Amino acid sequence: MTDLPQDEPVFKRLALIGVGNIGSSIARAVRQAGNGAAHLAAFDRDPAVRARLLELGIVDSVHETAAEAVTGADGVVLCAPVGAYAAIMSEIAPHLEQGAVLTDIGSVKLAVVRDVAPLVPEGVHFVPGHPVAGTEKSGPDAGFAELFRGRFWLLTPEEGVDPTATAKVEALWSRVGAIVEVMDAAYHDKVLALTSHLPHLIAYTIVGTAFDVEEQERQDVIRFSAGGFRDFTRIAGSDPTMWRDIFLNNKEAVLEMLQRFTEDLTALQRQIRWGEGDKLYEFFERTREVRRSVVEAHQEGSNPWGPDANKEDADSEGGKPE
Amino acid sequence: MTDLPQDEPVFKRLALIGVGNIGSSIARAVRQAGNGAAHLAAFDRDPAVRARLLELGIVDSVHETAAEAVTGADGVVLCAPVGAYAAIMSEIAPHLEQGAVLTDIGSVKLAVVRDVAPLVPEGVHFVPGHPVAGTEKSGPDAGFAELFRGRFWLLTPEEGVDPTATAKVEALWSRVGAIVEVMDAAYHDKVLALTSHLPHLIAYTIVGTAFDVEEQERQDVIRFSAGGFRDFTRIAGSDPTMWRDIFLNNKEAVLEMLQRFTEDLTALQRQIRWGEGDKLYEFFERTREVRRSVVEAHQEGSNPWGPDANKEDADSEGGKPE
Repeated sequence: MTDLPQDEPVFKRLALIGVGNIGSSIARAVRQAGNGAAHLAAFDRDPAVRARLLELGIVDSVHETAAEAVTGADGVVLCAPVGAYAAIMSEIAPHLEQGAVLTDIGSVKLAVVRDVAPLVPEGVHFVPGHPVAGTEKSGPDAGFAELFRGRFWLLTPEEGVDPTATAKVEALWSRVGAIVEVMDAAYHDKVLALTSHLPHLIAYTIVGTAFDVEEQERQDVIRFSAGGFRDFTRIAGSDPTMWRDIFLNNKEAVLEMLQRFTEDLTALQRQIRWGEGDKLYEFFERTREVRRSVVEAHQEGSNPWGPDANKEDADSEGGKPE
Repeated sequence: MTDLPQDEPVFKRLALIGVGNIGSSIARAVRQAGNGAAHLAAFDRDPAVRARLLELGIVDSVHETAAEAVTGADGVVLCAPVGAYAAIMSEIAPHLEQGAVLTDIGSVKLAVVRDVAPLVPEGVHFVPGHPVAGTEKSGPDAGFAELFRGRFWLLTPEEGVDPTATAKVEALWSRVGAIVEVMDAAYHDKVLALTSHLPHLIAYTIVGTAFDVEEQERQDVIRFSAGGFRDFTRIAGSDPTMWRDIFLNNKEAVLEMLQRFTEDLTALQRQIRWGEGDKLYEFFERTREVRRSVVEAHQEGSNPWGPDANKEDADSEGGKPE
């Protein structure tokens, strides 16, 4: 995957800008890997988070400004919500070192390239990235070192980006256990709109719908929210800022997939209304096949919940016959 | 909850009609409880399942016909898909003992009362029920004794049903660890349409939508199906027959909730199209509150996955920041 010596850290000083769930998981994972970075510098705009980082002791230095954090760094990771990237870039751009490698963890990539690329100084290498991992929890306490193990980490470098820069980012994330893949930004956004953005939008919607009912019913929706609905509430418990930014920044792909979804749902609705049992059965049988291929494609090794596994699990029930 | 002596089984002979995931979990749970039934009789229309039941040894007798299974039984549980209830009833009705208690595990209750009540002989007591528990797996091998522990088991007896009969069913399911609640059938169907039926319909739809794409993309949808989408595929992996019957038998409530959902989704779609970030944030913040109340309402004790906990968990990620 890379010819960088395994016993040497990929970066001398790696700066993390914005340290929430993902940022703190990166800090913990890089620490644990040992050969990711010699020094971990961190900045978060929230003073409470900066204070907490000092208590947690998962980074080597915490800084009052993003500019200070990136000064002297040969590696920089934007871990803030994508909506904040432009503002962050205009602040740190003048302070980025020549030859430094800049990457991010944003869930959308075309918009990131659009916002960030124009602000990257000559001599700094930008390699957009996206770890397909995480939990619905937010904040530096929610992170854990095992989050990226066996998970995909997608990189979408543009044409002409220095291959050495891409190789370094690839090496860094490989060393925290991720499976790194390089792909086109537009394709990334289209596939993720299907596998992540649309599902989250639907989950947010159904949770909202279920609660626009009278009080008594709402109480029982909570009490009897086993199975399907509870899985949805977990998904809908994700960070509002992050998801607002995702939907606003992957608008085209999300709206296209949403249109397809609505057409399909309308067809099913009609089948239910007209009691077309055979068509319903046929459709459910087909989606069951999909489930099989997904399970086959993801072997159990990579436990996305890390330490929270059993705890989280007690709150998840899959497609229950309720 | 009941004044039946704890050291005596609730039923002398309990007959299970249709032994899939739920039926076999009931068999295992009643066996484990010890004081649920002195004898467990079972029938399944599938010869392979009957053979498997003999191998598993989780019931005391396996019968070639439902009529034979219910003969001499003072307790009968319909564990087949609700669509099969009418046919089963017309076969077993003549063989039901006087004073026998009849219950079921159907996920819809109004339709069950509609189909079953008219076929219940004089002197037989019908107490419709629904365990809010289960997994997406099917068949007798998928069941486990702990499935009902700490889970709700909803009973919807009609006016005038012998309270002793209801008390017996209540005692039986309490002894396998369930929290038994008595409620109105129409209300049950309305609440479950929100907490279970609509979520399942949505999950089936989105999984179908994601796969109506060209091959390359489909492969990547599978490979990158972490988080949201993978949770949906699990839900959509549920038994097609059972779900077809649920949607056909809770049509009114499901269509009403589906209408509300579509309106809410259309509103969000418009907010995305017009880039109304504040409204999106506000909505996501609200659903997050819902998540909190759901988590508070369900403490971790009741692990729905029982033995499969970790295995299943490796395939669940909640609302991930992808």
